[in-house]
Amino acid sequence: MEQFEVTILGCGSALPTSRHNGTSQIVNIRGKYFMIDCAEGTQLNLRKSHVNITRINTILLSHLHGDHCLGLAGYVSTLGLLGRTAPLHIYGPKDIESVFKPMISYFSPHLEFEVVYHELDTSQNTLIYEDRSLTIHTIPLTHRVPCCGYLFKEKPGLPHIRVDALERYGIPYSQINNIKNGMDFTTSDGKTISNEELTTPPDAPRSYAFCSDTSFKPDIIPIIRESTLLYHEATYGEDKKDLAQKYAHSTAKEAGIIAREANVGKLVIGHYSQRYEDETVLLRESLKEFPNTELANEGKTFFVGQ
Amino acid sequence: MEQFEVTILGCGSALPTSRHNGTSQIVNIRGKYFMIDCAEGTQLNLRKSHVNITRINTILLSHLHGDHCLGLAGYVSTLGLLGRTAPLHIYGPKDIESVFKPMISYFSPHLEFEVVYHELDTSQNTLIYEDRSLTIHTIPLTHRVPCCGYLFKEKPGLPHIRVDALERYGIPYSQINNIKNGMDFTTSDGKTISNEELTTPPDAPRSYAFCSDTSFKPDIIPIIRESTLLYHEATYGEDKKDLAQKYAHSTAKEAGIIAREANVGKLVIGHYSQRYEDETVLLRESLKEFPNTELANEGKTFFVGQ
Repeated sequence: MEQFEVTILGCGSALPTSRHNGTSQIVNIRGKYFMIDCAEGTQLNLRKSHVNITRINTILLSHLHGDHCLGLAGYVSTLGLLGRTAPLHIYGPKDIESVFKPMISYFSPHLEFEVVYHELDTSQNTLIYEDRSLTIHTIPLTHRVPCCGYLFKEKPGLPHIRVDALERYGIPYSQINNIKNGMDFTTSDGKTISNEELTTPPDAPRSYAFCSDTSFKPDIIPIIRESTLLYHEATYGEDKKDLAQKYAHSTAKEAGIIAREANVGKLVIGHYSQRYEDETVLLRESLKEFPNTELANEGKTFFVGQ
Repeated sequence: MEQFEVTILGCGSALPTSRHNGTSQIVNIRGKYFMIDCAEGTQLNLRKSHVNITRINTILLSHLHGDHCLGLAGYVSTLGLLGRTAPLHIYGPKDIESVFKPMISYFSPHLEFEVVYHELDTSQNTLIYEDRSLTIHTIPLTHRVPCCGYLFKEKPGLPHIRVDALERYGIPYSQINNIKNGMDFTTSDGKTISNEELTTPPDAPRSYAFCSDTSFKPDIIPIIRESTLLYHEATYGEDKKDLAQKYAHSTAKEAGIIAREANVGKLVIGHYSQRYEDETVLLRESLKEFPNTELANEGKTFFVGQ
């Protein structure tokens, strides 16, 4: 199966601890890397990971709270020192350009690459990125400032050629792409073999839904339905449900409910409040609602669909 | 001897590595804490140290390169979340207010404490802070942007009372301060004992000179002469002397020469280029010029005068 994986660089919340950084993740789809959020310390954890820093061309910011974006100016400065020349695309809520452009200009006045800002309407579920194999849509969230998640979806792939058919009908290498794209095959003795006999259906497209800081928001369920992997914030346990409501965050139980109702494949929770020295209390509360839950942790990689 | 120590939070240079953060230090003088520089990740390393974060009232920035100050907005945000109410004083080159005030206002709009900016003329050796026991002066440095170091000097203390005299002359507790401040003592049978007989001289005032990014600059020698402890940047070894000149940095050898010519007590070098996987090459080059050299490292505390 083609590469599709998520590496956690930070999964703490506003007050960084010695155990958890602010939010950042790397999504790797077939060797294309996307950074989601960029808290202070992101570039330091990135160095410890095995991600090839030069392959990240896109940064998606969920919202402009410091624990999700205050590593951006330092990260961009490092890219400059490393000699980057390819444009860097930064997506995020309105204000990203007015907030980061002056900071980046001041601290990195001689960049040899362009920083392209894409300001998004975080209240809409919109297609913001598309290439040959992938789409990215925003997921509208409800937080104290404009905030959205991001849904990464593979495009449907091509059917697989049946290995036994290759040999049986003496299919030359040159015909494989034609057959994958739906053509029948005519053997050397003039017999036509239908495409259905030659192929098996393509892999089901996989998807990754990143849901950043948000109140409990069942509105997102139709958008993220059947996602292969869902990351959902779970700042608090049921003991601090009042704080979750006050600060527009979710509890672990609420994350589990969203995962169950959306019928996702797997749920990863994170954005732990510094109040929890041991996050298994959060894990337990989510597991009661949705059995396939795991805890995020710095340096951990989750495969999408394996 | 009263507490006077320097804890290294970061001693790397512009490109952070998995071994070293950008520059930050904490100076603790008798329980008063000063932060020098505040690179990205400073608050993360501060959490791992034993410094009481609420006791830092003053931040001294040497210059506005990202690897010396891009942790400031995150650090201030954390202070806000921790409920700080006491004013925070930030000293540094011109621009600190225009650069950091908008950033701090955006990311921490509801601070309950005042941030007071003190913009300095980094080209002058000036007294910028004074209290009952301490002065801080700027040390003009030469870098690619306005830059200064900071010289922390104890004020001369009071003489010590001789313990044997306390008993011999039956000196009551109430008289100790008077005697420390120079008064003679009259015994119960009317005999006057001169102050010199009752006291020994005060400890010699100690000093700490922090020399941030700079070209080799012998002009600073008269300012830092006889410092108890000198921190001096040593970004490169002799093999990269050309880069030191190009980027207005010092070599380890040059740091050693400054320490020797200024006749300081001890030299600590840091701000290592990421090119050096093993900094002992830098240590060796400095040791040739000045034998009492040590390497800075994250988490290490240096006592001033012990």
